[in-house]
Amino acid sequence: MRARKKKWAPAELENNPLIIKSDAAQAIDLKRHFGNSQPIHMEIGCGKGRFITECARRNPDINFIAVERESAILAAAARRAAQLARESPLSVAFLLLDVNELARCIPPGAISRLYINFCDPWPNKKKWAKRRLTHTNFLQTYEALRIPELHFKTDNRLLFEFSIESLSQNRWQMHNVSLDLHANPDENNIVTEYEEKFSPFGPIYRLEASPPGLINPPIPSKI
Amino acid sequence: MRARKKKWAPAELENNPLIIKSDAAQAIDLKRHFGNSQPIHMEIGCGKGRFITECARRNPDINFIAVERESAILAAAARRAAQLARESPLSVAFLLLDVNELARCIPPGAISRLYINFCDPWPNKKKWAKRRLTHTNFLQTYEALRIPELHFKTDNRLLFEFSIESLSQNRWQMHNVSLDLHANPDENNIVTEYEEKFSPFGPIYRLEASPPGLINPPIPSKI
Repeated sequence: MRARKKKWAPAELENNPLIIKSDAAQAIDLKRHFGNSQPIHMEIGCGKGRFITECARRNPDINFIAVERESAILAAAARRAAQLARESPLSVAFLLLDVNELARCIPPGAISRLYINFCDPWPNKKKWAKRRLTHTNFLQTYEALRIPELHFKTDNRLLFEFSIESLSQNRWQMHNVSLDLHANPDENNIVTEYEEKFSPFGPIYRLEASPPGLINPPIPSKI
Repeated sequence: MRARKKKWAPAELENNPLIIKSDAAQAIDLKRHFGNSQPIHMEIGCGKGRFITECARRNPDINFIAVERESAILAAAARRAAQLARESPLSVAFLLLDVNELARCIPPGAISRLYINFCDPWPNKKKWAKRRLTHTNFLQTYEALRIPELHFKTDNRLLFEFSIESLSQNRWQMHNVSLDLHANPDENNIVTEYEEKFSPFGPIYRLEASPPGLINPPIPSKI
């Protein structure tokens, strides 16, 4: 899904009202963007956007934001979401951002749940371990942003093993760990496009995690 | 494997030199039993004893002790180990003990590694969660005994999920997590009788864990 193959992408990025226009030099005022004080849940990497829009459809009392570094992917997801939002309002936004810029653009305390679904596992490449979104460096970013909950899904065994180690070594507490999410079908599980495609080939792994030192840890949920 | 089916078991318990005679009223002097100051690794639940005797055969510089609450099982394992020890010396001992009595009989600091292999998962029974050997209460016992390393294997998915949650919620750090131990055959893995029998039917899960607050955390290993 390269930008050059989507001639409409630049116009979509410019005109789609669900896309947050950010000034890279300062933190984004998310409350102002959404126009309310509802909790905000964020997804890193949005794919075609099915997960985040379905979250928004099911939970109108929560604002959702998808962060994506590939402009063509973001444009396509935002276009699809805008079409759906015409049928019934969706509190969802899209932000073109590299995850390494997260701490600069998102104010601490703004995000109350983080979703990471089927991120790149950077497999078998020790030198690339730092790029995995559950690496210590990223966990420290999430902690600095005071995100109280991480919900993580993957079909990659090695990434899930790595993530359990990384989370525990950083003193995160895990809840609702599933080593075969589809063994017990759960209507609360919102299936991503990738998950639908790859779940026949092996188990889907999932967990929830909270950073150390929370005064009011979130109540574990399956959503 | 009931005691009444093994008429020789009481005599074995009485006469086998590998069985530790314990006075239930006081902590056992393990250094005295082994006659040296080598590190001691303990297995809870020994089955037929193949794992612990193979550990001892491979690691003559470590003392091994298997704890088992069923006298007939212990007698059979100790009998087999004594036969093997006639061929070449093995530093292994067997102790008839319920794991709930561990803290009373084992002095703090005596055990430098704990193995739990394929313990009873107490499946689908919330009221029995406390009996699982990775329940908070047991983790606190291991911590009180200052055991720096736990090595845990199971084929039971629900038990492994429970254990990851329990360990992380008690701030244990996990290492060498494997969600399919037999996917990459490893000669360092000593296969138990149970493991051999059940590994064709699904993945074997394994992890190493260390309690919080260790001054010198052990170097993770695969053994």
